[in-house]
Amino acid sequence: MKKKAIALACRMDSERAFNLTKKIFEYLVKKKNEIVYLETRIAPKILPPNGIDLSEMTSENTKFILSIGGDGTLLRVAGDLSQHDPPPILGVNIGSIGFLDESNERVIFRDIDKLINGEYSIEARAKLSSYLMRGTSDEKKLGDAINEILIVSSKNSKVLQVSIKINGIFLNRSYLDGVIVSTSTGSTAYNLSAGGAIIHPTLNMMQLVALNPYARSGLKPIVLPIDSEIEVHLLRPRLNGRVLIDGRRIIKGIQPNTQILIRKSNSVVKFIRFDDNYYSRLRKKIIGMVRIPRDDSPEEF
Amino acid sequence: MKKKAIALACRMDSERAFNLTKKIFEYLVKKKNEIVYLETRIAPKILPPNGIDLSEMTSENTKFILSIGGDGTLLRVAGDLSQHDPPPILGVNIGSIGFLDESNERVIFRDIDKLINGEYSIEARAKLSSYLMRGTSDEKKLGDAINEILIVSSKNSKVLQVSIKINGIFLNRSYLDGVIVSTSTGSTAYNLSAGGAIIHPTLNMMQLVALNPYARSGLKPIVLPIDSEIEVHLLRPRLNGRVLIDGRRIIKGIQPNTQILIRKSNSVVKFIRFDDNYYSRLRKKIIGMVRIPRDDSPEEF
Amino acid sequence: MKKKAIALACRMDSERAFNLTKKIFEYLVKKKNEIVYLETRIAPKILPPNGIDLSEMTSENTKFILSIGGDGTLLRVAGDLSQHDPPPILGVNIGSIGFLDESNERVIFRDIDKLINGEYSIEARAKLSSYLMRGTSDEKKLGDAINEILIVSSKNSKVLQVSIKINGIFLNRSYLDGVIVSTSTGSTAYNLSAGGAIIHPTLNMMQLVALNPYARSGLKPIVLPIDSEIEVHLLRPRLNGRVLIDGRRIIKGIQPNTQILIRKSNSVVKFIRFDDNYYSRLRKKIIGMVRIPRDDSPEEF
Amino acid sequence: MKKKAIALACRMDSERAFNLTKKIFEYLVKKKNEIVYLETRIAPKILPPNGIDLSEMTSENTKFILSIGGDGTLLRVAGDLSQHDPPPILGVNIGSIGFLDESNERVIFRDIDKLINGEYSIEARAKLSSYLMRGTSDEKKLGDAINEILIVSSKNSKVLQVSIKINGIFLNRSYLDGVIVSTSTGSTAYNLSAGGAIIHPTLNMMQLVALNPYARSGLKPIVLPIDSEIEVHLLRPRLNGRVLIDGRRIIKGIQPNTQILIRKSNSVVKFIRFDDNYYSRLRKKIIGMVRIPRDDSPEEF
Repeated sequence: MKKKAIALACRMDSERAFNLTKKIFEYLVKKKNEIVYLETRIAPKILPPNGIDLSEMTSENTKFILSIGGDGTLLRVAGDLSQHDPPPILGVNIGSIGFLDESNERVIFRDIDKLINGEYSIEARAKLSSYLMRGTSDEKKLGDAINEILIVSSKNSKVLQVSIKINGIFLNRSYLDGVIVSTSTGSTAYNLSAGGAIIHPTLNMMQLVALNPYARSGLKPIVLPIDSEIEVHLLRPRLNGRVLIDGRRIIKGIQPNTQILIRKSNSVVKFIRFDDNYYSRLRKKIIGMVRIPRDDSPEEF
Repeated sequence: MKKKAIALACRMDSERAFNLTKKIFEYLVKKKNEIVYLETRIAPKILPPNGIDLSEMTSENTKFILSIGGDGTLLRVAGDLSQHDPPPILGVNIGSIGFLDESNERVIFRDIDKLINGEYSIEARAKLSSYLMRGTSDEKKLGDAINEILIVSSKNSKVLQVSIKINGIFLNRSYLDGVIVSTSTGSTAYNLSAGGAIIHPTLNMMQLVALNPYARSGLKPIVLPIDSEIEVHLLRPRLNGRVLIDGRRIIKGIQPNTQILIRKSNSVVKFIRFDDNYYSRLRKKIIGMVRIPRDDSPEEF
Repeated sequence: MKKKAIALACRMDSERAFNLTKKIFEYLVKKKNEIVYLETRIAPKILPPNGIDLSEMTSENTKFILSIGGDGTLLRVAGDLSQHDPPPILGVNIGSIGFLDESNERVIFRDIDKLINGEYSIEARAKLSSYLMRGTSDEKKLGDAINEILIVSSKNSKVLQVSIKINGIFLNRSYLDGVIVSTSTGSTAYNLSAGGAIIHPTLNMMQLVALNPYARSGLKPIVLPIDSEIEVHLLRPRLNGRVLIDGRRIIKGIQPNTQILIRKSNSVVKFIRFDDNYYSRLRKKIIGMVRIPRDDSPEEF
Repeated sequence: MKKKAIALACRMDSERAFNLTKKIFEYLVKKKNEIVYLETRIAPKILPPNGIDLSEMTSENTKFILSIGGDGTLLRVAGDLSQHDPPPILGVNIGSIGFLDESNERVIFRDIDKLINGEYSIEARAKLSSYLMRGTSDEKKLGDAINEILIVSSKNSKVLQVSIKINGIFLNRSYLDGVIVSTSTGSTAYNLSAGGAIIHPTLNMMQLVALNPYARSGLKPIVLPIDSEIEVHLLRPRLNGRVLIDGRRIIKGIQPNTQILIRKSNSVVKFIRFDDNYYSRLRKKIIGMVRIPRDDSPEEF
């Protein structure tokens, strides 16, 4: 059996991320017993022969990937990995909110030792696939989302009109800025700003949220089984739509009368976890705690 | 084996509901082959010997219960049934919104024939249990909810201050009007008015929503695994709390420093379904469709 | 012309407030040139003969009132003052949020000197009056609000159904937990938790907000001219309503079919201000600022 | 004194609007006593010599303008009129929601007679001006809004980070999709979809609303005096912003570190009104009324 590598990927425009990546590389090399891959873009600056494309990393050749940066970096790395049996990822946060990241620059070397000793668990999370279809044409696959698929107008100045079906059943026709279909992973991202509920990430499901619908619309956030199919039909003549996948990949020029289909992906994303600290992380990074006196005004209020 | 009965329960203050109940009773009696139970409160007016308490109806003596009224009646009947192995219920709606009801006065006789022929499925849905605990005292069970457990202040004029833990992990401390923990069944009830997400009823989970929290609170709706334990600690000195179960049962005078625990119930509620028409019902009864022109103002707007 | 007094009122259940009040009293007495009134409830503990009821304080006998406590104390004092030509009030905050308070325990002695030297301005703010009316009966006055008039159900378990008219024009019929009509002063209080907009306090107007309306209701917050008349008609048979004025005074047992009328009061409340620091106070006490890195993830997100 | 004209403007891509315009033209010509202007774009198809640019119409040469179309047409016409002393406008709605329009195709000929007889009133409403400023550079004026100024990111995939000042006082720094500053006229437009309050149009003020702010932001809708100055500073490096004026005019490529200033315009828009029917229009076109039984479930719920 071939020995598997540890792979390093990092945020490209941050010196801080790059320096940490170099230190981690050196730390791993000193272990003597580990093969280390470097994502193609950073290999030239560290050790060129060790470069390998993210899309070529699989569970067969890679034990795990360290993604050094923030949530954005993690989304990029996870999105560019091989769809077939991708290796698990450890997010290493450097200075941003980093809700998805399990490790950070202060504890990473201790965490690497845990990884090497096998002291971790893997959390497999569903992704969403999106497809375009016009009339009786074949479906055209757009790509997979870890957080969300967002459908918006091609013009800031014109709101979309869409008709939405779930599993072929008509649900709603609305004027709105956009439609968000998110995974449980993505429930704390754009979904939350748009009024969706937070969903515990081990709950495998999708959530549909209308982005700024016309005020009389009754279209509230809906949590659906992960094997549902959502169909968003662009109705407005002369107004193109756009699809954004995890806020990274943009598909422009989607014509009126196109249907955008969203389903569970065949692939998953695997996150490395050391403990089950979801609720603490939620409190610290998302919900916060407003500091107000324990008993504000017992007399009259 | 003893032959099982069909049971009838109905809304007490509606002549329309009572008259339909009588017609259904006569229809079933004519079948000759069916035993018919009547809930104790209505038996005297129809056939006294057939009266039996809801709490004595189980799957062992009752094939199914027809609940004639609206969602309120269904909640009352389901709430008062035996906790041990309750029989399935068919909600028969008369003139209200009736989101939970599967049948209505127009189609009930056709539906009864389907029931007798076994042409139906049963949807088992989780319920929530609530408990009180003070200091090291024993837990005191309060009762089960089909829709939601609501915790509010005993005084309209004083907001609660609570601390919330999930599975023992501290999540938030807030000033608020109340805390709602709802089932997926209850997601379209009070939960929705308070800003929670709609959850497909086959998804077995609970949702935590803060009712009118102080504006700077970050406590957003959270969807949790059904086996979570939510603990709400009443913090405000000299201010009692109240617990409302499905808006029907009220537990008053809950003292400061009490913890209210909410968990999945050991019992379930079983609804009779003829088809899977959830999304149509959601559209017609909850989401609606605003009637606006297909293309409002393509010129400039 | 009779010399006017400086009056002191304070939160009754706070030793800290009482101790500060005593210090302020002594500070003023030392000035030798000032008459000092004490609200009746605290006079016995400081100097009994100087006690006078809040309702007897007017601009004619009182230069200004120091209200020592928090927003709750300020609401109580302002609410109990003479309706006819009330004296201006300075809120002195001790340890709570104190959004309405202009002074606090750290700066109060400096502020008292400013007061005595006339270095302040007076901000007159509108109040709201509420009335009950049934059929052709006479109106019954309920009292004035500085923050808001709140109409709720007498039972936590039953939502109100109301019909709302503005200036006699029918606007909406809704199921809801309550109706809030607030002043601009009250826009940062309960109005804000319920989804209303913040209104700059110098803008003299009222805001109507539905409290947790049934989810399909389109009743959004509405800002109205201060001379509007809002009429809330309780529609639900057998369900009484309650009116809460500034969360302090409760009128219970309001029967179905009663109309609650809300109009501008003939009286005003006068706040003492030293500077125009509204936006800073809004930021510090209400809006806050979430501490996130200046540039979170410029690479990919 | 020169006799003033009646001017006609219409939606360009609607045959229905154009046909009604032609009929109105013929109706006015038959009156024999009226000069009729046609906006330049439609004159060639009706009577070329009567063409005149919207920007040349003022109170001095034009009694009033009929804008035939919907709200979008009204915004275009009002936006393109002379800023100096513009004539009043009557919106004539054809088949869309038309909240701003006072007349429609069914009643327009009766309304024209009222206009000619002087049986109308004029409602002058404030507009907002917007300016760009970078460093110590001069301000660059962008144009006036009748409804709202919207500031968004130039990339759907990247949220803005802005700092907001009011009258030079720092209020908030947030990640968000956009910032909306609306007039009272625009309070029922995009402002409402984004969570802002409805403001009675005779109340002369501006409202600031954050568009999908990051979930922990406390930036709630704020209603401000019309003479306030709002300053939105684009903070995010390498991310341009856009300004949209009434959803019609787009200013692209606004660089990081630019300040966008928003103030009351020197000009106003004048709407012709026949009655004060604001609340009925609000109910019919915006708030609606959910049709639910008068008493849903008095028994148990």
